[in-house]
Amino acid sequence: MKPNAERVKEFLLHLQDEICQKLAAVDGGEFQEDNWQREAGGGGRSRVLRNGSIFEQAGVNFSHVHGDAMPASATAHRPELAGRSFEAMGVSLVVHPLNPFVPTSHANVRFFIAEKPGADPVWWFGGGFDLTPFYGFEEDAVHWHTTARDLCLPFGEDVYPKYKKWCDDYFYIKHRDEQRGIGGLFFDDLNTPDFDTAFRFMQAVGQGYTDAYLPIVERRKNTDYGVREREFQLYRRGRYVEFNLVWDRGTLFGLQTGGRTESILMSMPPLVRWEYSFEPKEGSPEAALKEFIQVRDWV
Amino acid sequence: MKPNAERVKEFLLHLQDEICQKLAAVDGGEFQEDNWQREAGGGGRSRVLRNGSIFEQAGVNFSHVHGDAMPASATAHRPELAGRSFEAMGVSLVVHPLNPFVPTSHANVRFFIAEKPGADPVWWFGGGFDLTPFYGFEEDAVHWHTTARDLCLPFGEDVYPKYKKWCDDYFYIKHRDEQRGIGGLFFDDLNTPDFDTAFRFMQAVGQGYTDAYLPIVERRKNTDYGVREREFQLYRRGRYVEFNLVWDRGTLFGLQTGGRTESILMSMPPLVRWEYSFEPKEGSPEAALKEFIQVRDWV
Repeated sequence: MKPNAERVKEFLLHLQDEICQKLAAVDGGEFQEDNWQREAGGGGRSRVLRNGSIFEQAGVNFSHVHGDAMPASATAHRPELAGRSFEAMGVSLVVHPLNPFVPTSHANVRFFIAEKPGADPVWWFGGGFDLTPFYGFEEDAVHWHTTARDLCLPFGEDVYPKYKKWCDDYFYIKHRDEQRGIGGLFFDDLNTPDFDTAFRFMQAVGQGYTDAYLPIVERRKNTDYGVREREFQLYRRGRYVEFNLVWDRGTLFGLQTGGRTESILMSMPPLVRWEYSFEPKEGSPEAALKEFIQVRDWV
Repeated sequence: MKPNAERVKEFLLHLQDEICQKLAAVDGGEFQEDNWQREAGGGGRSRVLRNGSIFEQAGVNFSHVHGDAMPASATAHRPELAGRSFEAMGVSLVVHPLNPFVPTSHANVRFFIAEKPGADPVWWFGGGFDLTPFYGFEEDAVHWHTTARDLCLPFGEDVYPKYKKWCDDYFYIKHRDEQRGIGGLFFDDLNTPDFDTAFRFMQAVGQGYTDAYLPIVERRKNTDYGVREREFQLYRRGRYVEFNLVWDRGTLFGLQTGGRTESILMSMPPLVRWEYSFEPKEGSPEAALKEFIQVRDWV
Protein backbone atom coordinates (compact mmCIF):
# COMPACT_ATOMS: atom_id res chain seq x y z
CA MET A 1 0.00 0.00 0.00
CA LYS A 2 1.24 3.49 -0.86
CA PRO A 3 1.93 5.87 1.99
CA ASN A 4 -0.73 8.54 2.32
CA ALA A 5 1.10 11.59 3.64
CA GLU A 6 -2.00 13.78 3.56
CA ARG A 7 -3.86 11.52 5.96
CA VAL A 8 -0.88 11.49 8.32
CA LYS A 9 -0.64 15.26 8.25
CA GLU A 10 -4.32 15.64 9.00
CA PHE A 11 -3.98 13.30 11.96
CA LEU A 12 -0.93 15.13 13.32
CA LEU A 13 -2.63 18.53 13.20
CA HIS A 14 -5.64 17.07 14.94
CA LEU A 15 -3.42 15.40 17.56
CA GLN A 16 -1.67 18.69 18.30
CA ASP A 17 -5.09 20.34 18.82
CA GLU A 18 -6.31 17.60 21.08
CA ILE A 19 -3.21 17.47 23.28
CA CYS A 20 -3.12 21.26 23.64
CA GLN A 21 -6.79 21.33 24.61
CA LYS A 22 -6.28 18.67 27.26
CA LEU A 23 -3.17 20.28 28.74
CA ALA A 24 -4.82 23.72 28.76
CA ALA A 25 -7.89 22.29 30.48
CA VAL A 26 -5.77 20.84 33.28
CA ASP A 27 -3.74 24.01 33.68
CA GLY A 28 -6.31 26.73 33.09
CA GLY A 29 -3.73 28.61 30.98
CA GLU A 30 -3.61 29.25 27.26
CA PHE A 31 -1.33 28.20 24.43
CA GLN A 32 0.24 30.85 22.27
CA GLU A 33 0.60 29.86 18.60
CA ASP A 34 3.28 30.69 16.03
CA ASN A 35 3.02 29.63 12.42
CA TRP A 36 6.34 29.58 10.63
CA GLN A 37 7.86 28.79 7.27
CA ARG A 38 11.18 27.09 6.70
CA GLU A 39 13.38 28.68 4.05
CA ALA A 40 14.56 25.34 2.67
CA GLY A 41 10.98 24.03 2.44
CA GLY A 42 8.01 23.43 4.70
CA GLY A 43 7.12 24.94 8.04
CA GLY A 44 5.24 24.36 11.21
CA ARG A 45 2.84 25.37 13.92
CA SER A 46 4.42 25.86 17.35
CA ARG A 47 2.36 26.19 20.49
CA VAL A 48 3.56 27.04 23.94
CA LEU A 49 1.86 27.51 27.29
CA ARG A 50 4.01 29.39 29.80
CA ASN A 51 3.86 30.24 33.47
CA GLY A 52 0.75 28.18 33.91
CA SER A 53 -0.60 27.18 37.31
CA ILE A 54 0.57 23.59 36.71
CA PHE A 55 2.92 23.78 33.75
CA GLU A 56 5.87 26.12 33.96
CA GLN A 57 6.19 25.44 30.25
CA ALA A 58 4.47 23.12 27.81
CA GLY A 59 5.61 23.22 24.19
CA VAL A 60 3.70 21.28 21.54
CA ASN A 61 5.09 21.51 18.00
CA PHE A 62 3.77 20.40 14.67
CA SER A 63 6.23 20.55 11.79
CA HIS A 64 6.33 19.40 8.20
CA VAL A 65 9.63 19.90 6.42
CA HIS A 66 11.16 18.67 3.20
CA GLY A 67 14.57 18.87 1.62
CA ASP A 68 16.79 17.72 -1.20
CA ALA A 69 19.10 15.47 0.82
CA MET A 70 18.63 13.50 4.02
CA PRO A 71 20.80 14.95 6.79
CA ALA A 72 23.51 12.91 8.51
CA SER A 73 21.55 12.49 11.76
CA ALA A 74 18.81 10.65 9.84
CA THR A 75 20.99 8.39 7.73
CA ALA A 76 23.79 7.41 10.12
CA HIS A 77 22.24 3.97 10.60
CA ARG A 78 20.64 3.82 7.13
CA PRO A 79 23.40 4.76 4.72
CA GLU A 80 21.35 3.50 1.75
CA LEU A 81 19.15 6.60 2.15
CA ALA A 82 21.95 9.18 1.93
CA GLY A 83 21.29 11.71 -0.79
CA ARG A 84 17.59 10.99 -1.13
CA SER A 85 15.14 13.85 -0.96
CA PHE A 86 12.96 13.64 2.12
CA GLU A 87 9.74 14.73 3.71
CA ALA A 88 9.37 14.65 7.49
CA MET A 89 6.36 15.51 9.61
CA GLY A 90 5.63 15.13 13.25
CA VAL A 91 4.28 16.32 16.55
CA SER A 92 6.79 16.74 19.33
CA LEU A 93 6.14 17.97 22.84
CA VAL A 94 7.84 18.51 26.17
CA VAL A 95 6.01 19.47 29.36
CA HIS A 96 7.94 21.04 32.27
CA PRO A 97 5.65 21.21 35.31
CA LEU A 98 6.21 23.73 38.07
CA ASN A 99 5.69 21.31 40.96
CA PRO A 100 8.75 19.03 41.39
CA PHE A 101 6.47 16.14 42.34
CA VAL A 102 4.90 16.20 38.88
CA PRO A 103 7.27 14.51 36.42
CA THR A 104 8.43 16.06 33.16
CA SER A 105 7.09 14.31 30.09
CA HIS A 106 7.98 14.08 26.43
CA ALA A 107 6.16 12.62 23.44
CA ASN A 108 6.79 12.53 19.73
CA VAL A 109 5.24 10.92 16.68
CA ARG A 110 6.76 11.30 13.24
CA PHE A 111 6.53 10.16 9.64
CA PHE A 112 9.32 10.14 7.05
CA ILE A 113 9.37 9.61 3.31
CA ALA A 114 12.68 9.38 1.44
CA GLU A 115 12.52 9.42 -2.35
CA LYS A 116 14.75 9.15 -5.35
CA PRO A 117 13.83 9.22 -9.02
CA GLY A 118 13.01 5.82 -10.47
CA ALA A 119 12.68 4.06 -7.09
CA ASP A 120 9.77 3.35 -4.77
CA PRO A 121 9.58 5.83 -1.91
CA VAL A 122 10.91 4.56 1.41
CA TRP A 123 8.65 5.53 4.31
CA TRP A 124 8.54 4.86 8.02
CA PHE A 125 6.92 5.92 11.26
CA GLY A 126 8.60 6.69 14.54
CA GLY A 127 7.63 7.99 17.94
CA GLY A 128 7.14 7.28 21.59
CA PHE A 129 6.80 8.88 24.97
CA ASP A 130 8.92 8.88 28.10
CA LEU A 131 8.67 10.17 31.65
CA THR A 132 11.27 11.98 33.75
CA PRO A 133 10.38 12.13 37.44
CA PHE A 134 12.29 14.11 40.06
CA TYR A 135 10.72 12.13 42.90
CA GLY A 136 9.76 8.56 42.17
CA PHE A 137 6.32 7.08 42.83
CA GLU A 138 5.79 3.40 42.06
CA GLU A 139 2.12 3.81 41.21
CA ASP A 140 2.88 6.57 38.71
CA ALA A 141 5.52 4.50 36.97
CA VAL A 142 3.23 1.47 36.89
CA HIS A 143 0.37 3.52 35.45
CA TRP A 144 2.66 5.08 32.80
CA HIS A 145 3.99 1.75 31.64
CA THR A 146 0.68 -0.07 31.90
CA THR A 147 -0.87 2.52 29.59
CA ALA A 148 2.03 2.02 27.20
CA ARG A 149 1.70 -1.77 27.32
CA ASP A 150 -2.08 -1.71 26.83
CA LEU A 151 -1.95 0.48 23.75
CA CYS A 152 0.69 -1.82 22.24
CA LEU A 153 -1.21 -5.07 22.90
CA PRO A 154 -3.53 -4.98 19.85
CA PHE A 155 -0.39 -4.85 17.70
CA GLY A 156 1.22 -7.94 19.20
CA GLU A 157 2.54 -9.28 22.48
CA ASP A 158 6.14 -8.48 21.61
CA VAL A 159 5.52 -4.82 20.77
CA TYR A 160 5.63 -3.31 24.27
CA PRO A 161 8.77 -5.16 25.49
CA LYS A 162 10.59 -4.31 22.28
CA TYR A 163 9.77 -0.59 22.29
CA LYS A 164 10.17 -0.31 26.06
CA LYS A 165 13.71 -1.60 25.73
CA TRP A 166 14.41 0.67 22.78
CA CYS A 167 13.26 3.60 24.91
CA ASP A 168 15.55 2.62 27.78
CA ASP A 169 18.45 2.29 25.33
CA TYR A 170 17.71 5.61 23.66
CA PHE A 171 17.19 7.83 26.71
CA TYR A 172 20.53 6.96 28.23
CA ILE A 173 22.90 9.77 29.19
CA LYS A 174 26.19 8.18 28.27
CA HIS A 175 28.51 10.73 29.92
CA ARG A 176 26.60 10.29 33.21
CA ASP A 177 25.98 6.54 32.88
CA GLU A 178 22.41 7.36 33.85
CA GLN A 179 18.92 6.98 32.37
CA ARG A 180 17.12 10.23 31.59
CA GLY A 181 14.04 8.95 33.40
CA ILE A 182 11.88 5.83 33.60
CA GLY A 183 11.37 5.52 29.85
CA GLY A 184 8.18 4.39 28.15
CA LEU A 185 8.04 3.66 24.42
CA PHE A 186 10.38 4.43 21.54
CA PHE A 187 10.05 3.13 18.00
CA ASP A 188 11.58 4.07 14.67
CA ASP A 189 11.88 2.75 11.10
CA LEU A 190 8.39 1.22 11.37
CA ASN A 191 6.99 0.24 7.96
CA THR A 192 5.52 -3.18 8.68
CA PRO A 193 3.22 -5.02 8.27
CA ASP A 194 1.69 -2.33 6.02
CA PHE A 195 1.09 1.41 5.94
CA ASP A 196 -2.35 1.29 7.55
CA THR A 197 -1.30 -0.81 10.52
CA ALA A 198 1.90 1.15 11.11
CA PHE A 199 -0.11 4.37 10.92
CA ARG A 200 -2.65 3.03 13.40
CA PHE A 201 0.12 2.17 15.82
CA MET A 202 1.59 5.66 15.55
CA GLN A 203 -1.89 7.07 16.22
CA ALA A 204 -2.29 4.86 19.28
CA VAL A 205 1.01 6.12 20.69
CA GLY A 206 0.18 9.76 19.99
CA GLN A 207 -3.23 9.47 21.59
CA GLY A 208 -2.00 7.31 24.44
CA TYR A 209 0.32 10.02 25.75
CA THR A 210 -2.37 12.02 27.56
CA ASP A 211 -3.91 8.84 28.98
CA ALA A 212 -0.52 7.99 30.40
CA TYR A 213 0.41 11.45 31.67
CA LEU A 214 -2.65 13.36 32.84
CA PRO A 215 -3.70 11.02 35.67
CA ILE A 216 -0.19 11.42 37.12
CA VAL A 217 -0.45 15.19 36.88
CA GLU A 218 -3.81 15.13 38.68
CA ARG A 219 -2.43 12.90 41.41
CA ARG A 220 0.67 15.01 42.17
CA LYS A 221 -0.21 18.58 41.27
CA ASN A 222 -1.29 19.61 44.76
CA THR A 223 1.61 18.06 46.66
CA ASP A 224 3.30 20.65 48.87
CA TYR A 225 6.89 21.44 48.07
CA GLY A 226 9.52 23.91 49.18
CA VAL A 227 12.84 25.40 48.15
CA ARG A 228 14.64 22.10 48.60
CA GLU A 229 12.43 20.21 46.14
CA ARG A 230 12.45 23.08 43.68
CA GLU A 231 16.27 23.27 43.78
CA PHE A 232 16.51 19.55 43.16
CA GLN A 233 14.12 19.81 40.22
CA LEU A 234 16.16 22.64 38.67
CA TYR A 235 19.33 20.61 39.16
CA ARG A 236 17.86 17.50 37.54
CA ARG A 237 16.60 19.59 34.64
CA GLY A 238 20.28 20.06 33.81
CA ARG A 239 20.40 16.38 32.88
CA TYR A 240 17.51 16.97 30.50
CA VAL A 241 19.44 19.76 28.79
CA GLU A 242 22.57 17.62 28.61
CA PHE A 243 20.73 14.74 26.99
CA ASN A 244 18.85 16.86 24.48
CA LEU A 245 21.81 18.92 23.33
CA VAL A 246 24.49 16.23 23.37
CA TRP A 247 22.71 12.99 22.49
CA ASP A 248 19.20 13.51 21.16
CA ARG A 249 18.94 12.58 17.46
CA GLY A 250 15.70 14.53 17.05
CA THR A 251 17.26 17.76 18.31
CA LEU A 252 20.34 17.28 16.14
CA PHE A 253 18.16 16.46 13.12
CA GLY A 254 16.29 19.71 13.65
CA LEU A 255 19.38 21.85 14.12
CA GLN A 256 21.20 20.20 11.18
CA THR A 257 18.32 20.62 8.76
CA GLY A 258 17.98 24.32 9.46
CA GLY A 259 14.84 23.78 11.50
CA ARG A 260 13.33 26.62 13.49
CA THR A 261 15.67 26.89 16.49
CA GLU A 262 13.09 28.44 18.82
CA SER A 263 10.70 25.55 18.16
CA ILE A 264 13.34 22.86 18.50
CA LEU A 265 14.68 24.32 21.74
CA MET A 266 11.19 24.67 23.19
CA SER A 267 12.25 21.42 24.85
CA MET A 268 14.70 23.37 27.04
CA PRO A 269 13.44 23.87 30.59
CA PRO A 270 12.57 27.49 31.45
CA LEU A 271 14.96 27.49 34.42
CA VAL A 272 17.92 25.18 35.05
CA ARG A 273 20.67 24.82 37.59
CA TRP A 274 24.07 23.16 37.50
CA GLU A 275 26.00 22.42 40.66
CA TYR A 276 29.51 21.04 40.60
CA SER A 277 29.78 17.58 42.18
CA PHE A 278 26.34 17.70 43.76
CA GLU A 279 25.38 14.53 45.60
CA PRO A 280 22.08 14.23 47.48
CA LYS A 281 22.31 13.22 51.13
CA GLU A 282 22.35 9.50 51.67
CA GLY A 283 18.91 8.18 52.53
CA SER A 284 17.12 11.33 51.33
CA PRO A 285 14.19 11.28 48.86
CA GLU A 286 16.53 12.98 46.36
CA ALA A 287 19.09 10.19 46.70
CA ALA A 288 16.33 7.64 46.04
CA LEU A 289 15.89 8.92 42.48
CA LYS A 290 19.09 7.26 41.32
CA GLU A 291 17.70 3.84 42.12
CA PHE A 292 14.23 4.71 40.86
CA ILE A 293 15.39 5.54 37.33
CA GLN A 294 17.35 2.32 36.91
CA VAL A 295 16.02 0.24 34.04
CA ARG A 296 13.38 -2.17 35.31
CA ASP A 297 10.12 -3.93 34.46
CA TRP A 298 7.26 -1.79 35.66
CA VAL A 299 4.24 -3.85 34.60
CA MET B 1 63.68 19.82 18.91
CA LYS B 2 61.90 17.11 20.87
CA PRO B 3 58.76 18.07 22.78
CA ASN B 4 59.31 18.27 26.51
CA ALA B 5 56.02 17.22 28.04
CA GLU B 6 57.32 17.49 31.61
CA ARG B 7 58.15 21.16 31.22
CA VAL B 8 54.70 21.83 29.77
CA LYS B 9 53.01 20.03 32.63
CA GLU B 10 54.99 21.98 35.19
CA PHE B 11 53.98 25.23 33.52
CA LEU B 12 50.31 24.24 33.40
CA LEU B 13 50.16 23.37 37.08
CA HIS B 14 51.83 26.65 37.91
CA LEU B 15 49.43 28.55 35.64
CA GLN B 16 46.43 26.98 37.35
CA ASP B 17 47.82 28.08 40.73
CA GLU B 18 48.48 31.59 39.55
CA ILE B 19 45.08 32.11 37.94
CA CYS B 20 43.26 30.71 40.97
CA GLN B 21 45.21 32.98 43.31
CA LYS B 22 44.39 36.05 41.24
CA LEU B 23 40.70 35.23 40.90
CA ALA B 24 40.42 34.41 44.62
CA ALA B 25 42.14 37.69 45.51
CA VAL B 26 39.61 39.70 43.49
CA ASP B 27 36.66 37.78 44.87
CA GLY B 28 37.67 37.16 48.45
CA GLY B 29 36.35 33.61 48.20
CA GLU B 30 38.15 30.28 48.12
CA PHE B 31 38.67 27.56 45.58
CA GLN B 32 37.74 24.01 46.48
CA GLU B 33 40.05 21.38 44.97
CA ASP B 34 39.36 17.87 43.71
CA ASN B 35 42.09 15.54 42.53
CA TRP B 36 40.85 12.77 40.31
CA GLN B 37 42.09 9.80 38.35
CA ARG B 38 40.82 8.74 34.96
CA GLU B 39 40.18 5.01 34.59
CA ALA B 40 41.55 4.86 31.06
CA GLY B 41 44.71 6.74 32.06
CA GLY B 42 45.70 10.04 33.62
CA GLY B 43 43.76 12.40 35.81
CA GLY B 44 43.41 15.97 36.86
CA ARG B 45 43.07 18.69 39.45
CA SER B 46 39.77 20.56 39.38
CA ARG B 47 39.23 23.77 41.27
CA VAL B 48 36.02 25.65 41.71
CA LEU B 49 35.05 28.81 43.55
CA ARG B 50 31.31 29.10 44.12
CA ASN B 51 28.90 31.72 45.40
CA GLY B 52 31.66 34.28 45.61
CA SER B 53 31.04 37.97 46.06
CA ILE B 54 32.05 38.60 42.44
CA PHE B 55 32.08 35.17 40.81
CA GLU B 56 28.93 33.10 40.97
CA GLN B 57 31.17 30.31 39.75
CA ALA B 58 34.75 30.07 38.56
CA GLY B 59 36.03 26.68 37.49
CA VAL B 60 39.72 26.20 36.71
CA ASN B 61 40.73 22.71 35.59
CA PHE B 62 44.04 21.07 35.02
CA SER B 63 43.96 17.70 33.32
CA HIS B 64 46.48 15.30 31.88
CA VAL B 65 45.03 12.28 30.10
CA HIS B 66 46.36 9.63 27.79
CA GLY B 67 44.82 6.86 25.74
CA ASP B 68 45.39 4.19 23.15
CA ALA B 69 43.55 5.83 20.27
CA MET B 70 42.82 9.45 19.41
CA PRO B 71 39.07 10.11 19.66
CA ALA B 72 37.01 11.23 16.66
CA SER B 73 36.65 14.83 17.89
CA ALA B 74 40.43 15.25 17.78
CA THR B 75 41.09 13.63 14.41
CA ALA B 76 38.14 14.83 12.30
CA HIS B 77 40.35 17.36 10.54
CA ARG B 78 43.57 15.32 10.90
CA PRO B 79 42.67 11.83 9.70
CA GLU B 80 46.35 10.86 9.51
CA LEU B 81 46.38 10.74 13.33
CA ALA B 82 43.51 8.29 13.71
CA GLY B 83 44.51 5.27 15.76
CA ARG B 84 47.60 6.84 17.32
CA SER B 85 48.03 6.76 21.05
CA PHE B 86 47.80 10.20 22.58
CA GLU B 87 48.65 12.33 25.54
CA ALA B 88 46.73 15.54 26.20
CA MET B 89 47.23 18.10 28.92
CA GLY B 90 45.75 21.49 29.52
CA VAL B 91 44.27 24.14 31.73
CA SER B 92 40.72 25.15 30.97
CA LEU B 93 38.61 27.67 32.80
CA VAL B 94 35.25 29.39 32.69
CA VAL B 95 34.26 32.28 34.96
CA HIS B 96 30.58 33.12 35.48
CA PRO B 97 30.31 36.42 37.37
CA LEU B 98 27.26 37.30 39.42
CA ASN B 99 26.93 40.88 38.19
CA PRO B 100 25.50 40.94 34.64
CA PHE B 101 27.71 43.92 33.79
CA VAL B 102 30.81 41.76 34.28
CA PRO B 103 31.29 39.57 31.22
CA THR B 104 31.75 35.80 31.33
CA SER B 105 35.21 34.68 30.29
CA HIS B 106 36.82 31.49 29.10
CA ALA B 107 40.45 30.51 28.59
CA ASN B 108 42.22 27.31 27.65
CA VAL B 109 45.76 26.22 26.85
CA ARG B 110 46.56 22.68 25.82
CA PHE B 111 49.29 20.40 24.55
CA PHE B 112 48.88 17.18 22.57
CA ILE B 113 51.27 14.42 21.60
CA ALA B 114 50.14 11.65 19.21
CA GLU B 115 52.46 8.68 18.86
CA LYS B 116 52.79 5.47 16.93
CA PRO B 117 55.57 2.90 17.01
CA GLY B 118 58.35 3.58 14.57
CA ALA B 119 57.34 7.16 13.79
CA ASP B 120 58.28 10.55 15.24
CA PRO B 121 55.75 11.81 17.74
CA VAL B 122 53.37 14.46 16.40
CA TRP B 123 52.83 17.27 18.88
CA TRP B 124 51.02 20.57 18.92
CA PHE B 125 49.80 23.38 21.15
CA GLY B 126 46.40 24.98 21.20
CA GLY B 127 44.57 27.52 23.28
CA GLY B 128 43.05 30.95 23.49
CA PHE B 129 40.63 33.10 25.45
CA ASP B 130 37.33 34.71 24.63
CA LEU B 131 34.88 37.08 26.28
CA THR B 132 31.10 36.88 26.49
CA PRO B 133 29.50 40.14 27.63
CA PHE B 134 25.83 40.57 28.45
CA TYR B 135 26.05 44.35 28.18
CA GLY B 136 28.61 45.75 25.76
CA PHE B 137 31.24 48.34 26.68
CA GLU B 138 33.58 49.54 23.94
CA GLU B 139 36.46 50.21 26.30
CA ASP B 140 36.28 46.70 27.74
CA ALA B 141 36.31 45.13 24.29
CA VAL B 142 39.19 47.35 23.20
CA HIS B 143 41.19 46.47 26.33
CA TRP B 144 40.51 42.75 25.89
CA HIS B 145 41.62 42.70 22.28
CA THR B 146 44.53 45.08 22.80
CA THR B 147 45.91 42.74 25.46
CA ALA B 148 45.50 39.86 23.03
CA ARG B 149 47.22 41.74 20.23
CA ASP B 150 50.11 42.88 22.40
CA LEU B 151 50.92 39.41 23.66
CA CYS B 152 50.91 38.12 20.08
CA LEU B 153 53.17 40.85 18.66
CA PRO B 154 56.54 39.32 19.69
CA PHE B 155 55.57 36.26 17.67
CA GLY B 156 54.81 38.14 14.46
CA GLU B 157 52.52 40.81 13.06
CA ASP B 158 50.19 38.29 11.48
CA VAL B 159 49.62 36.26 14.65
CA TYR B 160 46.86 38.34 16.26
CA PRO B 161 44.74 38.84 13.12
CA LYS B 162 45.00 35.15 12.30
CA TYR B 163 44.02 33.86 15.74
CA LYS B 164 41.44 36.59 16.26
CA LYS B 165 39.68 35.43 13.11
CA TRP B 166 40.00 31.78 14.13
CA CYS B 167 38.34 32.68 17.43
CA ASP B 168 35.46 34.45 15.68
CA ASP B 169 35.02 31.45 13.39
CA TYR B 170 35.15 28.97 16.25
CA PHE B 171 32.82 30.65 18.75
CA TYR B 172 29.96 30.86 16.31
CA ILE B 173 26.58 29.41 17.28
CA LYS B 174 25.47 28.03 13.95
CA HIS B 175 21.86 27.26 14.85
CA ARG B 176 21.43 30.87 16.07
CA ASP B 177 23.60 32.50 13.39
CA GLU B 178 25.18 34.38 16.27
CA GLN B 179 28.64 34.82 17.80
CA ARG B 180 29.02 33.52 21.37
CA GLY B 181 30.62 36.81 22.38
CA ILE B 182 33.29 39.21 21.18
CA GLY B 183 35.97 36.57 20.72
CA GLY B 184 39.66 37.03 21.45
CA LEU B 185 42.23 34.42 20.45
CA PHE B 186 41.97 30.83 19.31
CA PHE B 187 44.81 28.69 17.98
CA ASP B 188 45.32 24.99 17.40
CA ASP B 189 47.76 22.59 15.70
CA LEU B 190 50.65 24.91 16.54
CA ASN B 191 54.03 23.19 16.12
CA THR B 192 56.05 25.90 14.34
CA PRO B 193 58.64 27.33 14.16
CA ASP B 194 59.90 24.97 16.90
CA PHE B 195 58.87 23.52 20.24
CA ASP B 196 60.35 26.30 22.36
CA THR B 197 58.74 29.15 20.47
CA ALA B 198 55.37 27.44 20.24
CA PHE B 199 55.57 26.70 23.98
CA ARG B 200 56.43 30.32 24.73
CA PHE B 201 53.42 31.48 22.74
CA MET B 202 51.12 29.15 24.63
CA GLN B 203 52.58 30.50 27.88
CA ALA B 204 51.96 34.07 26.77
CA VAL B 205 48.32 33.28 26.03
CA GLY B 206 47.82 31.47 29.34
CA GLN B 207 49.38 34.28 31.32
CA GLY B 208 47.73 37.01 29.25
CA TYR B 209 44.25 35.91 30.24
CA THR B 210 44.23 37.57 33.67
CA ASP B 211 45.78 40.75 32.22
CA ALA B 212 42.94 40.85 29.75
CA TYR B 213 40.12 39.97 32.14
CA LEU B 214 40.77 41.33 35.63
CA PRO B 215 40.81 45.05 34.75
CA ILE B 216 37.36 44.58 33.21
CA VAL B 217 36.11 42.82 36.34
CA GLU B 218 37.43 45.68 38.49
CA ARG B 219 35.77 48.27 36.28
CA ARG B 220 32.31 46.66 36.25
CA LYS B 221 31.99 44.76 39.50
CA ASN B 222 30.26 47.54 41.42
CA THR B 223 27.76 48.54 38.74
CA ASP B 224 24.22 48.46 40.11
CA TYR B 225 21.86 46.00 38.54
CA GLY B 226 18.36 44.70 39.12
CA VAL B 227 16.04 41.85 38.23
CA ARG B 228 15.89 42.92 34.60
CA GLU B 229 19.65 42.69 34.05
CA ARG B 230 19.88 39.46 36.00
CA GLU B 231 17.10 37.88 33.95
CA PHE B 232 18.83 38.91 30.75
CA GLN B 233 22.11 37.45 31.95
CA LEU B 234 20.43 34.12 32.80
CA TYR B 235 18.77 34.10 29.39
CA ARG B 236 22.04 34.77 27.55
CA ARG B 237 23.75 32.06 29.57
CA GLY B 238 21.46 29.68 27.67
CA ARG B 239 23.46 30.50 24.53
CA TYR B 240 26.62 29.53 26.38
CA VAL B 241 25.13 26.14 27.23
CA GLU B 242 23.93 25.64 23.67
CA PHE B 243 27.36 26.38 22.24
CA ASN B 244 29.26 24.23 24.68
CA LEU B 245 27.03 21.17 24.44
CA VAL B 246 26.24 21.27 20.72
CA TRP B 247 29.33 22.73 19.06
CA ASP B 248 32.35 22.89 21.35
CA ARG B 249 35.05 20.44 20.28
CA GLY B 250 36.75 20.61 23.67
CA THR B 251 33.60 19.56 25.50
CA LEU B 252 32.94 16.75 23.02
CA PHE B 253 36.56 15.61 23.25
CA GLY B 254 36.21 15.39 27.01
CA LEU B 255 32.91 13.54 26.97
CA GLN B 256 34.06 11.17 24.18
CA THR B 257 37.30 10.25 25.90
CA GLY B 258 35.59 9.33 29.13
CA GLY B 259 36.78 12.49 30.82
CA ARG B 260 35.51 13.44 34.24
CA THR B 261 32.02 14.75 33.50
CA GLU B 262 31.82 17.01 36.55
CA SER B 263 35.06 18.73 35.55
CA ILE B 264 34.13 19.10 31.90
CA LEU B 265 30.70 20.48 32.72
CA MET B 266 32.13 22.93 35.24
CA SER B 267 31.76 25.25 32.24
CA MET B 268 27.97 25.12 32.67
CA PRO B 269 26.55 28.26 34.29
CA PRO B 270 25.16 27.71 37.81
CA LEU B 271 21.74 29.11 36.80
CA VAL B 272 20.27 29.40 33.31
CA ARG B 273 17.01 30.47 31.76
CA TRP B 274 15.38 29.71 28.42
CA GLU B 275 12.50 31.76 27.13
CA TYR B 276 10.66 30.86 23.96
CA SER B 277 10.98 33.52 21.25
CA PHE B 278 12.38 36.15 23.59
CA GLU B 279 13.28 39.42 21.86
CA PRO B 280 14.59 42.40 23.82
CA LYS B 281 12.67 45.68 23.37
CA GLU B 282 13.89 47.73 20.44
CA GLY B 283 16.31 50.41 21.52
CA SER B 284 16.99 48.80 24.93
CA PRO B 285 20.50 48.05 26.26
CA GLU B 286 19.64 44.37 25.91
CA ALA B 287 18.80 44.80 22.23
CA ALA B 288 22.16 46.52 21.71
CA LEU B 289 24.02 43.30 22.52
CA LYS B 290 23.14 41.77 19.16
CA GLU B 291 25.05 44.49 17.33
CA PHE B 292 27.86 44.53 19.89
CA ILE B 293 28.77 40.87 19.41
CA GLN B 294 28.98 41.12 15.62
CA VAL B 295 32.45 40.29 14.35
CA ARG B 296 34.53 43.45 14.16
CA ASP B 297 38.01 44.91 14.53
CA TRP B 298 38.42 46.11 18.08
CA VAL B 299 42.00 47.41 18.05
